[in-house]
Amino acid sequence: MVDEVKMVIAVRKDLDLGKGKIAAQVAHAAVACALKAEKKEKKIFRKWMEGGQKKIVVRLANQQELLELKSRADSEGIITEAIFDAGHTQVDPGTLTCVGIGPAESSALDPITGSFKLL
Amino acid sequence: MVDEVKMVIAVRKDLDLGKGKIAAQVAHAAVACALKAEKKEKKIFRKWMEGGQKKIVVRLANQQELLELKSRADSEGIITEAIFDAGHTQVDPGTLTCVGIGPAESSALDPITGSFKLL
Repeated sequence: MVDEVKMVIAVRKDLDLGKGKIAAQVAHAAVACALKAEKKEKKIFRKWMEGGQKKIVVRLANQQELLELKSRADSEGIITEAIFDAGHTQVDPGTLTCVGIGPAESSALDPITGSFKLL
Repeated sequence: MVDEVKMVIAVRKDLDLGKGKIAAQVAHAAVACALKAEKKEKKIFRKWMEGGQKKIVVRLANQQELLELKSRADSEGIITEAIFDAGHTQVDPGTLTCVGIGPAESSALDPITGSFKLL
């Protein structure tokens, strides 16, 4: 199996966000992770871009699951970004809405995120 | 009024995409526009990042409306990125799903995108 490079963005499903709001939060995570990778993981970043910057959007139950995921990815040395909404509209200010993980090789990501359901 | 810097991502509503699919496509547009701005519009890019990389996700009726929007933004010298889905899942390969516009000053963006409805 080819070890492709991808990014996983995990979204809380307990917040019941609208689809435009979800899209903006996921985009925020993706941009933050991409810029971090561009600086700190140049080779991975280039592979990810060349492969079409693949992204998988998954859903997790709540804030605690997101934080556990982030912590696990951090401990593996994978790039992460937690996104807290400014809270102008649908949620309270500072609410954790999603976590971006990667880009990283699927051999590193799948053990951590492979069991999650697609959003 | 403060002339804030923002990015607008316009999504086709006639494709009836799932929310995870929309989020991934919008994220794709946001990353592509951000990386382009980082290279070609350093000052705008920095202002956008410092302002919390604001994003507005709007909906347009169909492919033609997206292409017209892109053409108008291009003619104003605003960064744009059209996203065509690889089509592994919900749509045919090469389907135009969304267009990212900016980051740009709201004084440049609003005349073009100000009338669109939020997704």
